[in-house]
Amino acid sequence: MANPLLSDRDVAFQLYEVHGALELCALPYFADHGRETFDPFLASARKLAREVLFPAYRPMDQEPPKLVDGRVRVHPAMREIWPRLVELGLTCPTRPAAVGGQQIPAIVAEMGAGYLMAANVAAMGYVGLTAGAGHLIEEFGSEWLRETFLPRMYGGAWSGTMALTEPQAGSSLADVRTRARATSGGHYLLDGNKVFISGGDQDFTDNVVHLALARIEGAPAGVKGISLFAVPRMRPGPDGGLVDNDCHSAGVFHKLGWRGLPSIALNFGERGDCRGWLVGTPHQGLPHMFQMMNSARLMVGMNGVMTAYVAYQEALEYARTRPQGRPLSSRDPRTPQVPIVQHADVRRMLLRQKAIVEGALSLLAACGRLADLADHGESEADRSRSAMLLDLLTPVAKTFPAEKGFESNVLAVQVHGGYGYTSEYLPEAWMRDQKLNSLHEGTSGIQALDLLGRKVLGTGGASLRALGEQVVADCQRPGVDPEQSAQLARALATIGETTMHLGSLGDRDAMMRNSSDYMELFSIAVIAWQWLLQAAAAREGLKRDTASSDFYQGKLAAAQYWFATEVPRIDQLCALCRSADDSYASMRPEWF
Amino acid sequence: MANPLLSDRDVAFQLYEVHGALELCALPYFADHGRETFDPFLASARKLAREVLFPAYRPMDQEPPKLVDGRVRVHPAMREIWPRLVELGLTCPTRPAAVGGQQIPAIVAEMGAGYLMAANVAAMGYVGLTAGAGHLIEEFGSEWLRETFLPRMYGGAWSGTMALTEPQAGSSLADVRTRARATSGGHYLLDGNKVFISGGDQDFTDNVVHLALARIEGAPAGVKGISLFAVPRMRPGPDGGLVDNDCHSAGVFHKLGWRGLPSIALNFGERGDCRGWLVGTPHQGLPHMFQMMNSARLMVGMNGVMTAYVAYQEALEYARTRPQGRPLSSRDPRTPQVPIVQHADVRRMLLRQKAIVEGALSLLAACGRLADLADHGESEADRSRSAMLLDLLTPVAKTFPAEKGFESNVLAVQVHGGYGYTSEYLPEAWMRDQKLNSLHEGTSGIQALDLLGRKVLGTGGASLRALGEQVVADCQRPGVDPEQSAQLARALATIGETTMHLGSLGDRDAMMRNSSDYMELFSIAVIAWQWLLQAAAAREGLKRDTASSDFYQGKLAAAQYWFATEVPRIDQLCALCRSADDSYASMRPEWF
Repeated sequence: MANPLLSDRDVAFQLYEVHGALELCALPYFADHGRETFDPFLASARKLAREVLFPAYRPMDQEPPKLVDGRVRVHPAMREIWPRLVELGLTCPTRPAAVGGQQIPAIVAEMGAGYLMAANVAAMGYVGLTAGAGHLIEEFGSEWLRETFLPRMYGGAWSGTMALTEPQAGSSLADVRTRARATSGGHYLLDGNKVFISGGDQDFTDNVVHLALARIEGAPAGVKGISLFAVPRMRPGPDGGLVDNDCHSAGVFHKLGWRGLPSIALNFGERGDCRGWLVGTPHQGLPHMFQMMNSARLMVGMNGVMTAYVAYQEALEYARTRPQGRPLSSRDPRTPQVPIVQHADVRRMLLRQKAIVEGALSLLAACGRLADLADHGESEADRSRSAMLLDLLTPVAKTFPAEKGFESNVLAVQVHGGYGYTSEYLPEAWMRDQKLNSLHEGTSGIQALDLLGRKVLGTGGASLRALGEQVVADCQRPGVDPEQSAQLARALATIGETTMHLGSLGDRDAMMRNSSDYMELFSIAVIAWQWLLQAAAAREGLKRDTASSDFYQGKLAAAQYWFATEVPRIDQLCALCRSADDSYASMRPEWF
Repeated sequence: MANPLLSDRDVAFQLYEVHGALELCALPYFADHGRETFDPFLASARKLAREVLFPAYRPMDQEPPKLVDGRVRVHPAMREIWPRLVELGLTCPTRPAAVGGQQIPAIVAEMGAGYLMAANVAAMGYVGLTAGAGHLIEEFGSEWLRETFLPRMYGGAWSGTMALTEPQAGSSLADVRTRARATSGGHYLLDGNKVFISGGDQDFTDNVVHLALARIEGAPAGVKGISLFAVPRMRPGPDGGLVDNDCHSAGVFHKLGWRGLPSIALNFGERGDCRGWLVGTPHQGLPHMFQMMNSARLMVGMNGVMTAYVAYQEALEYARTRPQGRPLSSRDPRTPQVPIVQHADVRRMLLRQKAIVEGALSLLAACGRLADLADHGESEADRSRSAMLLDLLTPVAKTFPAEKGFESNVLAVQVHGGYGYTSEYLPEAWMRDQKLNSLHEGTSGIQALDLLGRKVLGTGGASLRALGEQVVADCQRPGVDPEQSAQLARALATIGETTMHLGSLGDRDAMMRNSSDYMELFSIAVIAWQWLLQAAAAREGLKRDTASSDFYQGKLAAAQYWFATEVPRIDQLCALCRSADDSYASMRPEWF
């Protein structure tokens, strides 16, 4: 059976049985929508994913982009794929109709995009970057930029990128050096070198617009002196055509995965004629960028979920059909071999994958819904409460799929045995793809500092309280298991005490020392919350939908697995955070 | 600074300060040895590793073997490397002088081989396979085989392979189908298909000898009907030359890593003229093979350690020299950036790698010593006690480096940030290499069944008692920390109780359900034992060798880290093994 990429049943379950996507249609912004618009959108996305993007996945992995005569050539499959993705509206599905969007709730849009990410994460990368770059211009760009650039970007004639990183400025954007000199013509002249620019050049659109961070001459040092610019590869010329804008592809990085999407080194202004247009307020480039960062990080989270989800589907099918060995209790070699799904340890690997990928999908759906409420909720209180929860959950929704999704991808390889190590099978490629997600858009270490420092301690505990209230409210849903509910409440209480303890330490280094452990224990609790919700919905579903009984039983088993194997780890990790162990903090560089 | 591959100081520490390699020289078999022979051997190995094997690593990764006109062509660097490895005696370093060996203790030989594995694990693969195949012939071969094949294999004129796996028989060797028909000429005619034959063909020796499992006509079904054969690619002809022996390379697998070593599909007897010579007793092929399996698994363990060790060295150097960001407590952007080793979370990632790789190296050294004592110990009691402990530890020594070594390799990528994702840097390649070690020579799942089923429960607890006694004896060593010693004793007691509980379950499926969890908790304890020993030796070292003070402090910090972060997990995992959770055992295939 061909890999379905994502389980359609699970998508419907997440949207309509767990996360109440249809309730959103009561909000004015989504008033034109309902299941009659969501389902066709999802159907189109899955069809495109299965029929066009997935067949191109391995070819694009095997023939990565090349730099030829100063231009990047990507796999020709993108010439067919790009217009189809644009046609589906994926450059701006959630944006207002006024700018060409469809005003689809984020929770629905991300599920549609999810199929396509599962099919071909690199191909979807171009779209995600264009959407993000367009959104920055929509939000902060001048009227001229919004009129000239935006329709072309959302309309797919031009693509977009995020050009932040420089050789000396990766995690530390304070150290961005690219310079911008004001001119009398309303534009700036840019001069600098960027690296790791995904989609930084390609040959299937007329133009590429870089949303680039640079420092206006005389700006203060550090993050308070960084501005945001739109820097197109080709700029509008005097006669209405496009002229070269002095952006040069200096090299293509050879990557472990995501090999369908070029990551390039980019030079601005080699001949002093690279024009950029300020987006937003001078020196506010980083805050502007960060306003979009949530969606970029959620997109990475979704990439992570999907890369693990599609591999899980592949491993599942393999396990159901590959005969090998016999049950421990009846090893007569004259009997036929059994499919490996019959072996307990293979089921363990599959159930662990299921718990990770479906738990993570549920978290991303929850975040999609929170994004919808944060932007379009009825009351200011609704909006700000949702925004705070979304802020809190974003580093988790970015990191859990990257880190545990990688573990899940590794298990998908392991289920395939020796075959999993060969490129005759796909799991090794997805494992390579997944590794990027712990590195880009803020490494896992940066996310952990963000979670504990900015999102938890930085709000004085308000975000944690909001989460606690949400969980308490959710525990009132029909079908919630009282034991799971009690176990989760205890875990959250322990996390609360641990957080108070950390907050009381005073010394910033000591407070943040265990930020990665904190991310891990916090993620376990958040995913437990999602499994509690899924199990509750499954119990309710079992009462009315007997045709889905196997599906619901699987949800209950995965929830049980998570509560039995992962939730108990929270206590141990909390104890570690509160312990006096400082082995790595006090470890000196010369002792290694 | 160039990557040293392995820390010379650590090798000396493991051999002479922790594991008493010199004591072995009191045994008659090793009487000609001492530090004056060990150190030159190690020096030659590290020089060859650094100057010849390591420079060829990336080229061999980038130009994998090809099948051309029915023959496998490997990277030309192997033509230089192979004779140098043979010259160093690595095809038979521990074997008796009578067969061309050097009678070096395994603990020393494996450290020399370790440098070369760290430098180029694929290149060393040819040697390890030849050594293993030769050893089978030495042990079980007929006089004719020992005279004709062995000198050529140990002497490097011919290489060797292990040809076990078939398309339908991977983990389940009971299902081997390759047939062997007796002839009047003393040989058998073989007919069958093998897959994943590492080093199954190459173009730098005159011949390749496959040690192949096959079924003699009329043999019983299952593992009790499998025999072992020597099947050369070219067989000795009537005129003293070599003639084609009807072994065909049917295809080369495209692999994620280990790309310098071909893994091929091999057909025996396409034209009915493939001759094989029985090795050992008919139908005893699997027991014969298993007699060598310990060393093969320990070799894989060492591959795992070295692949993680070299990556850790690379990450360490990168962290010490890559400037990025500033301390949490002083973020003035006008100050210079600091090397990333200054960030607590980077130190965490490095210390975790150190704890894994040096803990695992210590375990492999302990196993090397046990192998030496099992073969050459003074009394029968010594030998059998060592053999039992070695049997018990082998699945751990194979699996821990594969699984946690992989985690360590992933951390080495992570320390490199975005650069770690590119093939401009080496960590991604080592990560790809490492993944094989959880799959070949028995998957991690198979090792877990072996540990709990055969090695622990199968000995009625005798092996666990022997381990406990060894740990108690080791805790008497000077320098042992009483708290670590008490913590380890408690952990072993908990493991003992958990094991008794599992043994009392009766139902084999229930007993083995948590075998992977058992492997994990057992490994944590075994590595804690190794860190207790290393910390003790470091405390003693600090008293007399002030020049190594940094080195010893690092050992103490890593031991502290392991006891603080990992040992507490044993309780939680034991509780899981004893709990009634059967989520994955009871999960039905149709529920996924």
